[in-house]
Amino acid sequence: MDRTADRDLKARALKVIPNGMYGHEAVHALPATFPQFFERAEGAYIWDADGNRYLDFMCAYGPSLLGYRDQRVDAAAAAQAAKGDTMTGPSPVMVDLAEALVSMVTHADWAMFCKNGTDATSMAMVAARAQTGKRIVLLAKGAYHGAAPWCTPNPVGVVAEDRAMLRYYEYNNAESLEAAVRDAGEDLAAIFATPFKHDAFFDQALPDPVYARRARELCDETGAMLVVDDVRAGFRLARDCSWSLVGVQPDLSCWGKAVANGQPLSILLGSDRCRKGAGSIYVTGSYWFAAVPMAASLETLRIIRESDYLEQMIRMGDRLRAGLASAAQRHGFGLRQTGPSQMPIMLFDDDPDLRVGFAWAEEMLQRGVYIHPWHNMFIAACMTEADIDMAVAAADGAFAATRARMAELQPSPVILAMAAAKAAEELQALA
Amino acid sequence: MDRTADRDLKARALKVIPNGMYGHEAVHALPATFPQFFERAEGAYIWDADGNRYLDFMCAYGPSLLGYRDQRVDAAAAAQAAKGDTMTGPSPVMVDLAEALVSMVTHADWAMFCKNGTDATSMAMVAARAQTGKRIVLLAKGAYHGAAPWCTPNPVGVVAEDRAMLRYYEYNNAESLEAAVRDAGEDLAAIFATPFKHDAFFDQALPDPVYARRARELCDETGAMLVVDDVRAGFRLARDCSWSLVGVQPDLSCWGKAVANGQPLSILLGSDRCRKGAGSIYVTGSYWFAAVPMAASLETLRIIRESDYLEQMIRMGDRLRAGLASAAQRHGFGLRQTGPSQMPIMLFDDDPDLRVGFAWAEEMLQRGVYIHPWHNMFIAACMTEADIDMAVAAADGAFAATRARMAELQPSPVILAMAAAKAAEELQALA
Repeated sequence: MDRTADRDLKARALKVIPNGMYGHEAVHALPATFPQFFERAEGAYIWDADGNRYLDFMCAYGPSLLGYRDQRVDAAAAAQAAKGDTMTGPSPVMVDLAEALVSMVTHADWAMFCKNGTDATSMAMVAARAQTGKRIVLLAKGAYHGAAPWCTPNPVGVVAEDRAMLRYYEYNNAESLEAAVRDAGEDLAAIFATPFKHDAFFDQALPDPVYARRARELCDETGAMLVVDDVRAGFRLARDCSWSLVGVQPDLSCWGKAVANGQPLSILLGSDRCRKGAGSIYVTGSYWFAAVPMAASLETLRIIRESDYLEQMIRMGDRLRAGLASAAQRHGFGLRQTGPSQMPIMLFDDDPDLRVGFAWAEEMLQRGVYIHPWHNMFIAACMTEADIDMAVAAADGAFAATRARMAELQPSPVILAMAAAKAAEELQALA
Repeated sequence: MDRTADRDLKARALKVIPNGMYGHEAVHALPATFPQFFERAEGAYIWDADGNRYLDFMCAYGPSLLGYRDQRVDAAAAAQAAKGDTMTGPSPVMVDLAEALVSMVTHADWAMFCKNGTDATSMAMVAARAQTGKRIVLLAKGAYHGAAPWCTPNPVGVVAEDRAMLRYYEYNNAESLEAAVRDAGEDLAAIFATPFKHDAFFDQALPDPVYARRARELCDETGAMLVVDDVRAGFRLARDCSWSLVGVQPDLSCWGKAVANGQPLSILLGSDRCRKGAGSIYVTGSYWFAAVPMAASLETLRIIRESDYLEQMIRMGDRLRAGLASAAQRHGFGLRQTGPSQMPIMLFDDDPDLRVGFAWAEEMLQRGVYIHPWHNMFIAACMTEADIDMAVAAADGAFAATRARMAELQPSPVILAMAAAKAAEELQALA
């Protein structure tokens, strides 16, 4: 595969962007062969700057739900763009969209729109404090809720005060949650939870209904707000808030990524239990009321309601999981595939420094399939059996090639440095 | 003017959005006749949900620099949209755009892209702390830097710790700044400044060069980072960072609004003095690397470099200012027009509760001109002499109508409540 254009772009970027790239789409912690820049995307595929095509199991880290450049969503966006986008006030489509969300998401009585997932989680925190008049927020250890000072997983440049009112509990552990609630005493504003455990570098875990129900009860007992951060998983597990699958309704839920099929929009949904708090805070952004992403979201929601996009994603996810399991077994690899099949993560047994995972991801990339060695992936609804079968065939070759390289594999220096930093942080926490 | 559609939309919105609307585009603190929802926008004009047309001096609170739906920018956006927008990595256009910014903005050696103005100011704060290893950030009292917990002007739902490492000084007052720097001692990370004083509700003030130069010197002496928050004013005062006009180069500058003529994009620019800090923090967002807003920005920057857009805005701003001054005088009103003419604010003498300003804004709206009674406004480069002359003619009628209503004017209950809340807050600060 030619990588000249990407290499040249990386060299230019290094001069005018710190480290050449930043954030979740930076490839520094991926195998060196991974391209950084992409020229175009269509359906389930992306093309890098050198014109190499990949079946993309990252889906832009979630936003591509129906596939890139879905014609129905793009037509709705274009029709709105011909009228207006960022104006001196919102378009009527904002009201249509809020009504659509309230009608679809069981716990929701109201909606507020923003741009980043972090905007929605931050607004949930502030609204919960405004509603309750209390300060402490409980988070599951290791859960990702965004990249603001209070939640970024790399706390460089963050001051201790940014997290002074946060406390941590173990996901899926009702006793740990109860202890944290007890410690918060009379000052508990909110309990945050991701809909399932989807922490990077770890096996995923579905929510234990005992834990989820206990979170609801503890909020009812204390007056705190229950917040489900559905930014990553929203509308990939259900046509409702993801915890509807375990029968638990939060007071607030945070949405983003898939809600407008790639157009920039995130959302805070809330019940009347938190309407007053949400209405008393001041949050805003230059582009929060832009009409094009809202028109795109309205069409995405229509498709979510009227099509079998969800069942199709699950079918394709199951097909991929079964195919990879067979191929891994055939080649003698222990491959752990965890979480919902439509949001899979794949980690190798006996691979603490990810050297096997990295080699396999490299070999998949070389065969035209873009997978991630340590972050959960995403199935798009436009993926077909032929796409999945192509990926499984590529995996067969990639397992064989990885097996042949096993003796020579080295860990990624970036991953080793991340592990060392993490260990140092944990030591510091103990001290 | 028919307002039926807007009234119906407001009633529907009240059910599914807290208070029916929130943030800087909410019309709760504007005269009751102001429409909330807009159907479309083109050039210098917006149309509300009832089809009423207004010459728009808010320009979407800044994003409309060249005019709404500028064909050149929209063509660049559409061409990129036909290739890809939010993908699994950035497009090569990200590198082109970073290079263009670094070539245009004197102090900039690198660029980072984000979505909200608040993202850029928050990143500046975190990067400055990472670079310096220090914590205290100085802000001018009353300056707006966004709506995150550390900076939102309405601190409901905010905890004291969110602002524990902030200190305040008087804008344009070198002595006050020096005292704040002294108080910060060895722990000063950054000094923030807006390029000129553009606080809502107040007369604007251009930067005193003595103050601006002193800010630079103090940063040089202490090792702190100088941050110019150009989100609102960027590219409306200069084709460079706005403080280039007073000969002062910051270490970091924050951009947004006008940079992509309405497409969602904000930017942190920095010098090599802060490259290491910026490269060590973790900040990201689901849509930060989307290609369409970057393509729109690249074309906007080309027009900024190659056209007389800036001189045109100043000519139109000056023409408006002169016309309004004559008309106000003719009708016996003391109208204070302050700040750069292309970012004007208009406040009436002897109008502490804004009842005169509200009445005049109502009368302007009735005559097809959208102005704001207490926030700075924006001239768009597409405005023509005919547009400005229409606004001045409207102002003549609006002054006359306001004069006729003077005896019956009442203050807005929302403004009275805001003033009372502000006074209570100041009392609390004294206690």
